[in-house]
Amino acid sequence: MAVYTEVGDEALAAFVADYDIGGVIAFRGIAEGVENSNYSLRTGAGDFILTLYEKRVDPADLPWFLGLMRHLAQRGIVCPLPVAARDGAALRRLCGRHAAITTFLPGVWPRRVRIEHCAPVGAALAGVHLAGADYPGERRNALGPESWAPLLERCRARAEEVQRGLADELHGALAAILAGWPAGLPRGHIHADLFPDNVFFLDGRLSGLIDFYFAATDPLAYDLAICINAWCFEADLSLNVTKTRAMLRAYDAVRPLEPAERAALPVLCQGAAMRFVLTRLYDWLNTPPGALVTRKNPLEYWRRLRFHLAASDEHAYGL
Amino acid sequence: MAVYTEVGDEALAAFVADYDIGGVIAFRGIAEGVENSNYSLRTGAGDFILTLYEKRVDPADLPWFLGLMRHLAQRGIVCPLPVAARDGAALRRLCGRHAAITTFLPGVWPRRVRIEHCAPVGAALAGVHLAGADYPGERRNALGPESWAPLLERCRARAEEVQRGLADELHGALAAILAGWPAGLPRGHIHADLFPDNVFFLDGRLSGLIDFYFAATDPLAYDLAICINAWCFEADLSLNVTKTRAMLRAYDAVRPLEPAERAALPVLCQGAAMRFVLTRLYDWLNTPPGALVTRKNPLEYWRRLRFHLAASDEHAYGL
Repeated sequence: MAVYTEVGDEALAAFVADYDIGGVIAFRGIAEGVENSNYSLRTGAGDFILTLYEKRVDPADLPWFLGLMRHLAQRGIVCPLPVAARDGAALRRLCGRHAAITTFLPGVWPRRVRIEHCAPVGAALAGVHLAGADYPGERRNALGPESWAPLLERCRARAEEVQRGLADELHGALAAILAGWPAGLPRGHIHADLFPDNVFFLDGRLSGLIDFYFAATDPLAYDLAICINAWCFEADLSLNVTKTRAMLRAYDAVRPLEPAERAALPVLCQGAAMRFVLTRLYDWLNTPPGALVTRKNPLEYWRRLRFHLAASDEHAYGL
Repeated sequence: MAVYTEVGDEALAAFVADYDIGGVIAFRGIAEGVENSNYSLRTGAGDFILTLYEKRVDPADLPWFLGLMRHLAQRGIVCPLPVAARDGAALRRLCGRHAAITTFLPGVWPRRVRIEHCAPVGAALAGVHLAGADYPGERRNALGPESWAPLLERCRARAEEVQRGLADELHGALAAILAGWPAGLPRGHIHADLFPDNVFFLDGRLSGLIDFYFAATDPLAYDLAICINAWCFEADLSLNVTKTRAMLRAYDAVRPLEPAERAALPVLCQGAAMRFVLTRLYDWLNTPPGALVTRKNPLEYWRRLRFHLAASDEHAYGL
């Protein structure tokens, strides 16, 4: 939970005055989100989200992210639409940060995933992949496979603090994943972080997707592997194959999976689990006491990784 | 900043179904607030705040707090109005906590206090005191003068970690404050925590008061002393007498201060500063690493206390 940058009321009023959205009526920090500072902003024109981009986001990427959201929204994906100020620019400065106002999306993210959430998520993800196909430019995935070995190296010395033998086990698994990493799969723009807190539901239907600030250009099926990790494991960290089947079938109905993508599911899921083990492990070891974010246990993804390492083929996921 | 209790979407839907306010449309954790978990809740009937009461609040006090808010709102004070469910009860249970829905107030709290905020705050505080006069029952101020010596005792051994000699200085000051504490001042229900983040402004006018969960029955002028501490010191911790004068005059215009209340201002301000030194000191020494709240520096109130100890009479505050 996070509001890292406090926005003064005078600074806020001056900032909002550059837009054609009326004056500020209400302004509250939002507890969700760990990367940036987010505020609910109500003006005479309605409800918006004000985001101040904090240190983890590379400012050079922001135009690409905002452009992607605009591109997707124009193609019917319900996602935050960046609001341009009177001069036409959506990306601005506030309190020493890059900042943007986006539209407010109704809905509630599911704190507990149920089977009926999984098909809509699969279908929505495929919709993002199709809608993004003609979005120009590429963004290298800074947390893609080539980042994993250096990240593990930086955690290696202290990984034992989390679990005995963890560094060696991760090292072995990573070598196998990278050796088996598929080439030639269909690529495109992926969300790369479509966890439950980034998906809103309203009246039982998916009502919006948020937080495109990890989006990148990578194999599309890898995005699905991230969603399997994020949505389809139970609290006891066993895979719910009914959930994966629902998600995969719904995805496939919108954007049919190629045989090579199906065959690559185990290694893609291994890689996705590895990515979250490593970033959580790094944060676990490097979050200072008293920080505003709750550290997430890396071992939850280590246990998912172990499941995927044991999966012999796509049938393990109900395909 | 705080959301201590995550509310599942099914639990939320079931909870809201007990009210005549339509279905859930949006739900976001609010970053502000350190005592309870607060959510922005939008339903078919509009915007609300959902509060889950966490461990610092005594459940036995909740009916009194909610009743006070209802009482004040009915008398024209703009404060959150508890919303009753279909069975007539506003205080309910959710996720193992006591919980209530209140109305949403527009406005923005001032991150930086300006002189023009101070008169409206003084007038609003006097309005609360007058409107509360016929609210029945009393609540003992659990953080009133009789709590300060025990609180200091609990911090004493470790106060040196914060500043050398702090425990002895506080001990001496506290003895003087308690010896000079006035008896016989007009009493009533006080807000007791009317800091800037509990006061909203909209279009340059005070638009609402929130967070009545420290309210208690105590000398009314003590509430004013808390506001002087909270609103009238500059960033360099010097008192801005223009601010105190504006606040005191505006208060006095709504509820005239008695001579005894004016004369007691220095000791009341000393006591108010002492209360915040002590609670912040206690929290400073007892907040575990990794907690979700930001610790506040107790020495900021120690420096205010020193100012008040040097104040010979009410003229120090511009009266």
